[in-house]
Amino acid sequence: MRFLALHGPNLNLLGKREPEIYGTLTLDDINCSLEVLALELGCNIAFYQSNSEGKLIDAIQGAVGVYDGIIFNPAAYTHTSIAIRDALASVALPFVEVHLSNVYRREEFRHKSLTAALAIGQICGFGVESYLLGLRALWGSLQH
Amino acid sequence: MRFLALHGPNLNLLGKREPEIYGTLTLDDINCSLEVLALELGCNIAFYQSNSEGKLIDAIQGAVGVYDGIIFNPAAYTHTSIAIRDALASVALPFVEVHLSNVYRREEFRHKSLTAALAIGQICGFGVESYLLGLRALWGSLQH
Amino acid sequence: MRFLALHGPNLNLLGKREPEIYGTLTLDDINCSLEVLALELGCNIAFYQSNSEGKLIDAIQGAVGVYDGIIFNPAAYTHTSIAIRDALASVALPFVEVHLSNVYRREEFRHKSLTAALAIGQICGFGVESYLLGLRALWGSLQH
Amino acid sequence: MRFLALHGPNLNLLGKREPEIYGTLTLDDINCSLEVLALELGCNIAFYQSNSEGKLIDAIQGAVGVYDGIIFNPAAYTHTSIAIRDALASVALPFVEVHLSNVYRREEFRHKSLTAALAIGQICGFGVESYLLGLRALWGSLQH
Amino acid sequence: MRFLALHGPNLNLLGKREPEIYGTLTLDDINCSLEVLALELGCNIAFYQSNSEGKLIDAIQGAVGVYDGIIFNPAAYTHTSIAIRDALASVALPFVEVHLSNVYRREEFRHKSLTAALAIGQICGFGVESYLLGLRALWGSLQH
Amino acid sequence: MRFLALHGPNLNLLGKREPEIYGTLTLDDINCSLEVLALELGCNIAFYQSNSEGKLIDAIQGAVGVYDGIIFNPAAYTHTSIAIRDALASVALPFVEVHLSNVYRREEFRHKSLTAALAIGQICGFGVESYLLGLRALWGSLQH
Amino acid sequence: MRFLALHGPNLNLLGKREPEIYGTLTLDDINCSLEVLALELGCNIAFYQSNSEGKLIDAIQGAVGVYDGIIFNPAAYTHTSIAIRDALASVALPFVEVHLSNVYRREEFRHKSLTAALAIGQICGFGVESYLLGLRALWGSLQH
Amino acid sequence: MRFLALHGPNLNLLGKREPEIYGTLTLDDINCSLEVLALELGCNIAFYQSNSEGKLIDAIQGAVGVYDGIIFNPAAYTHTSIAIRDALASVALPFVEVHLSNVYRREEFRHKSLTAALAIGQICGFGVESYLLGLRALWGSLQH
Amino acid sequence: MRFLALHGPNLNLLGKREPEIYGTLTLDDINCSLEVLALELGCNIAFYQSNSEGKLIDAIQGAVGVYDGIIFNPAAYTHTSIAIRDALASVALPFVEVHLSNVYRREEFRHKSLTAALAIGQICGFGVESYLLGLRALWGSLQH
Amino acid sequence: MRFLALHGPNLNLLGKREPEIYGTLTLDDINCSLEVLALELGCNIAFYQSNSEGKLIDAIQGAVGVYDGIIFNPAAYTHTSIAIRDALASVALPFVEVHLSNVYRREEFRHKSLTAALAIGQICGFGVESYLLGLRALWGSLQH
Amino acid sequence: MRFLALHGPNLNLLGKREPEIYGTLTLDDINCSLEVLALELGCNIAFYQSNSEGKLIDAIQGAVGVYDGIIFNPAAYTHTSIAIRDALASVALPFVEVHLSNVYRREEFRHKSLTAALAIGQICGFGVESYLLGLRALWGSLQH
Amino acid sequence: MRFLALHGPNLNLLGKREPEIYGTLTLDDINCSLEVLALELGCNIAFYQSNSEGKLIDAIQGAVGVYDGIIFNPAAYTHTSIAIRDALASVALPFVEVHLSNVYRREEFRHKSLTAALAIGQICGFGVESYLLGLRALWGSLQH
Repeated sequence: MRFLALHGPNLNLLGKREPEIYGTLTLDDINCSLEVLALELGCNIAFYQSNSEGKLIDAIQGAVGVYDGIIFNPAAYTHTSIAIRDALASVALPFVEVHLSNVYRREEFRHKSLTAALAIGQICGFGVESYLLGLRALWGSLQH
Repeated sequence: MRFLALHGPNLNLLGKREPEIYGTLTLDDINCSLEVLALELGCNIAFYQSNSEGKLIDAIQGAVGVYDGIIFNPAAYTHTSIAIRDALASVALPFVEVHLSNVYRREEFRHKSLTAALAIGQICGFGVESYLLGLRALWGSLQH
Repeated sequence: MRFLALHGPNLNLLGKREPEIYGTLTLDDINCSLEVLALELGCNIAFYQSNSEGKLIDAIQGAVGVYDGIIFNPAAYTHTSIAIRDALASVALPFVEVHLSNVYRREEFRHKSLTAALAIGQICGFGVESYLLGLRALWGSLQH
Repeated sequence: MRFLALHGPNLNLLGKREPEIYGTLTLDDINCSLEVLALELGCNIAFYQSNSEGKLIDAIQGAVGVYDGIIFNPAAYTHTSIAIRDALASVALPFVEVHLSNVYRREEFRHKSLTAALAIGQICGFGVESYLLGLRALWGSLQH
Repeated sequence: MRFLALHGPNLNLLGKREPEIYGTLTLDDINCSLEVLALELGCNIAFYQSNSEGKLIDAIQGAVGVYDGIIFNPAAYTHTSIAIRDALASVALPFVEVHLSNVYRREEFRHKSLTAALAIGQICGFGVESYLLGLRALWGSLQH
Repeated sequence: MRFLALHGPNLNLLGKREPEIYGTLTLDDINCSLEVLALELGCNIAFYQSNSEGKLIDAIQGAVGVYDGIIFNPAAYTHTSIAIRDALASVALPFVEVHLSNVYRREEFRHKSLTAALAIGQICGFGVESYLLGLRALWGSLQH
Repeated sequence: MRFLALHGPNLNLLGKREPEIYGTLTLDDINCSLEVLALELGCNIAFYQSNSEGKLIDAIQGAVGVYDGIIFNPAAYTHTSIAIRDALASVALPFVEVHLSNVYRREEFRHKSLTAALAIGQICGFGVESYLLGLRALWGSLQH
Repeated sequence: MRFLALHGPNLNLLGKREPEIYGTLTLDDINCSLEVLALELGCNIAFYQSNSEGKLIDAIQGAVGVYDGIIFNPAAYTHTSIAIRDALASVALPFVEVHLSNVYRREEFRHKSLTAALAIGQICGFGVESYLLGLRALWGSLQH
Repeated sequence: MRFLALHGPNLNLLGKREPEIYGTLTLDDINCSLEVLALELGCNIAFYQSNSEGKLIDAIQGAVGVYDGIIFNPAAYTHTSIAIRDALASVALPFVEVHLSNVYRREEFRHKSLTAALAIGQICGFGVESYLLGLRALWGSLQH
Repeated sequence: MRFLALHGPNLNLLGKREPEIYGTLTLDDINCSLEVLALELGCNIAFYQSNSEGKLIDAIQGAVGVYDGIIFNPAAYTHTSIAIRDALASVALPFVEVHLSNVYRREEFRHKSLTAALAIGQICGFGVESYLLGLRALWGSLQH
Repeated sequence: MRFLALHGPNLNLLGKREPEIYGTLTLDDINCSLEVLALELGCNIAFYQSNSEGKLIDAIQGAVGVYDGIIFNPAAYTHTSIAIRDALASVALPFVEVHLSNVYRREEFRHKSLTAALAIGQICGFGVESYLLGLRALWGSLQH
Repeated sequence: MRFLALHGPNLNLLGKREPEIYGTLTLDDINCSLEVLALELGCNIAFYQSNSEGKLIDAIQGAVGVYDGIIFNPAAYTHTSIAIRDALASVALPFVEVHLSNVYRREEFRHKSLTAALAIGQICGFGVESYLLGLRALWGSLQH
């Protein structure tokens, strides 16, 4: 089984800035942890990050036939991108939406998700653990 | 007379996914049909598709002096992109907004269009026919 | 095949008043153009206009078994009449909603349509051409 | 380390009714799975379910000094109970909010959570796995 | 056939207070009238009243397998309780929602019902007659 | 005692279309059932249906001095007609508002009633039984 | 100079019902008073009342070339009829909007007017005097 | 009988600025016209203008026992001043609210009036005639 | 004279948690202070606290004939419980609503009170003093 | 200790008008009662009333260094004046907001307070007692 | 060229209170800096501050013919005063709106400006520099 | 000191299109003027324009360590891009938001800014001067 960990805008800055909100781990650290867990679960995982809505859509479209599911942190595009929502609806790949921070503690415009209704489920608030739980959840839901 | 058929995000997947909403024709099929009709009307037509808001803006800006009008399906950006609206306002090229599906049957956030007020008119709900009617309408409005 | 062109309130004034919004053609001119196109498409077309919500409902109900589809410009009732919507839902005849002007350029209360969700599709902004494209679209959709 | 799995209204019916939304496992099955995982993680877990807002508040208040954290599925009270929110704020015990179904796919009044802003994080959509991931997340966050 | 007449908060005060809104009959009087009508219709009826949201949920859950339907006046919880709505959805027992007063004449927050969409139908405004009509309606709908 | 059963727009189609929402009985069947019950209750009943808001207002105004009350199904005008509301307020005849379907299960714009606040009460969701219960309720309320 | 006094729905009941809101004068009394004032001002006045939105539109359309202006009390249609607004916009006859009652003291849905923006001005709250002041205002504005 | 013509903020600029909205007459011209009409009606009239909300309140309070009624143009304070509304409610003097322009043609925040519900009636859109009609209406309503 | 001090959900935790919002006094301390003041005013006072909406309703209903008034801190139920509002309306006992914290400084959902409109008055923001002022106010209002 | 009792617009009319809302005491009576209580508490109190927003701001600014706190009834400015709010924020003097009437029983625009969030607390509904309780509360809060 | 620096409510407290929001400079310091810059630009500048909406309106009206433009900080009246907006519209003097603080970082009711649409432009967030940039911008725009 | 002038979507068209809104200067002209002023202030300035949200985010991220601040005109993304807001929050570089036109005179959706709350301040309405004032303001704020 192969998964794609897809990271939205500004996540490349992780661990370098605003550690009080997002923790001190870098995106590479997160990817490493995901790789370790993937190994443990007996599956493969690939990684992609982009600040561009269009490239994220390209990546989602390109995932069809290559990956069995996506661990997706759409970051700011969660709240504004109908285009990404449409891409997810089109490819119909199972995915789990994850957020590092607890979005309910932040500005009200972060409480609404355009993508979550298409996900298997959503996990937020646990820092890097959100990703690991997301991989576990995705992997688990594909066992059934 | 030369026209540009401009296709927004996820339209490259047409005919491959969600046929119950968008029909079974591919984007190439649509472009072919448009070419046939253009021939019949005695005009030329070019095609461009992008998932990126920025590239669609580039295409709109680049259309000035090259094309006499645009058949535009902004897809998801219809509802969210003020930047595309501004591009259309800046170039002031005549364009027709088309949608494959009847947007009024879908989620409420698809009922509002940021771009339609700048179009000559809007056509939605007829599948590939929306494009053909759009070309006919654009061509017709430029005869006057 | 037989169609009904159904015209809502104030459309009897067409061509006589507010030409800057609706053009200089009269309703008779529109009906003539529709008849010419119907001939070309090999089908029949009848016409009815009323300023009364109730009579438009009567006309919609009476269309069952007589016509194969409706080209409908509900005009102001587009935005206020649940009763017309219910009539359309009840008879379940295929219809195309058309508007002469681009409703998105006008007052915000004209941006919402109570009837469009029941139509095959909607066409607006092309003056009399809206009707002709509407007939073409209706005719086309009944070929399939 | 000791945890409380707190179940809100109607969760006692789990597995008996509406399996298409909540799956076929009973609340006892969920509690068993939690116990197995707790064992694996080397911690204890207790269970409580009530249909009464007041008793859930009593349980939250009573958890202070007895448990190190709560895995909480407030069910319908998620969206309506400021009183439960106040109880959680008062006791300031770390807790994880879990939901069996993906709340974003359901009625809009289920998209808002009065309690999530006080949780470490929220997990929804994975059926019984939501609880297991929740225990794992709670346990993990208390290691740091 | 056995029915449950379920009375929500403050209905135990009926006939004792605010007669200008709710009439002068007590809850016992209502229950008596219901019993007389049940006899006439050839069915049994039981009664339960509680001021507690949780106990009403318990009663709804407990009605499964015991009663064939519920005549339910949720009173104030009509407008605020998603938990009672969930209980009704879970047990899927046929029920009729009744209100003594005409809720449309009162404060705007009483115009919305969280439970009515799950009922067979709703009857309001006829005082004790609302209950009797409700029993008749419930009984009638179970004959089909 | 004499009553008027007043039927709003599209109810003349009853039993012919959309039976999954409104049942298979025709308006004549409903009127027959009402006549039978009227006989049983020892009163007279007359019938009127119109698709026109204006004619319904005429009928309401004309009911003064002729009928002792109205069983009124305003259908779509329930949600849009202040003019019918004003007619009902002006004649001040006792009336009961009835709906065949459970309006709370349908589109949100059907949840609001402009007329119900002027009725004795409202009954919805029981198909033809709504009318019969309505007659019974109207008759009952005039006994006091 | 010739004017039309146009009366909307339910105004035929004036003086017969709800005198605490609308006074005890009948519509004939009002028309008489208008005639007396018209004589005094040296102009003619005609009268028309209808409960039907469609007939009011017909009357407005028919006023072109016959009358120099309209004293219009659209009553309930003030707040709901875009079709009447469109008729007034189409004929572009000068008109004054009048209301017998002070609409600001009544339900909030009576505070908004769809027609007033097209009138020369609006007068409300003075009973029959509203009409007389309206005629005076209309007459005066046509002197300039 | 004695009346006060009370003019709100910026009305001292009348006739000097923005003639396209307010006409070319000055406040003195208006006061003169009012005086002429008062003479004709056999009553007295005094005048006061202030840009200050507080001084307008003082003037309203001071009018008790001195004037029999007020012709009041609250100008911008119409839409924002609860304090002036309270002053009018406290003194309970009959008053007529007048506006030079048709407020319904201007910004939406000018469509709402905090004071009109306390007036006998409101007159807007007739320029200086609004004042004269207002005096006539006030005088008339005090004859009864 | 006898009063009931009625304390809503989570107030049993007072003085133990969140002292920065609610102060360091316990509920017993508050009750003691109330008793001292009651003695001083020559009246009796009893106390009841519950986390359950239903039990608070029971307590309000039970207060009739036993107490002359209630000092009521509904806490979180202030903002959500129509059922408690109905209980207060039914028993029609004079009561004063008190809050320890200044609700206007907290989340917006705490700015609205469902119960205050039924109270003699409301006092908030003075910690335990809110209760003492409340008793004084209640006692005072019953002297008249 | 010295306090300022600051009275907003229209409070100078107290006891003279609308006694059913505000009671029969005059502002002088209230000031007298405050003076008596101040004496009892061993402090001084001064008084100021204005109908002008600007003068109330001047008074608040002028209170710095002269008074230790303010008992403030902003009356209508409570709901509209950001400028008074800013003055209170700038001087940072402790103050108590008082209202004679229970604002929650009146129009909805009186339920919101722009100033209360800056006060120690708010007291409303007790007539002149609101002021006395306010002085007591202010005095009490300055003892700590 | 002559300019007026017009300062709204509470700005006379500048530098004395809330330095963390507004800096430590006094209004005199700001006026001095403006004078220095005016000298440098070769123009004159006068100053006026008032807490009163009415006096600010008087000042704006009085500026006609005396000043060539206004640097205006309406402070709290920015968000509430239609009367000041009307004054600015009436005099039609070019003005620049300035704010010391970044209004977008403060309460949401400070994000809306009633006056900015009439200004040449708006500058906010730079403390005293906002004024200096404003003078520079006003001066610059009058060179063209 | 080094600054980046960052230009959002469609600003590359400046001076070529819609001069009535944006003036006749090109983006190069603006950059030239900025360079001249930078020289005068003794600092360096670089330029970047993109129509792509993603590339603007890349540019913001890349500015860390290279520039001391940004003069940023986000154009249409001002109103829609949470992703750009997040980028600005992450890099925490001081920036000034500038707009050529007075956004308050345009469509309401341009009145809200997602980015301004993170800026030092905002300047709008002065055409190219907005940029020059912005550079001056940024430079000034970094002197302190």
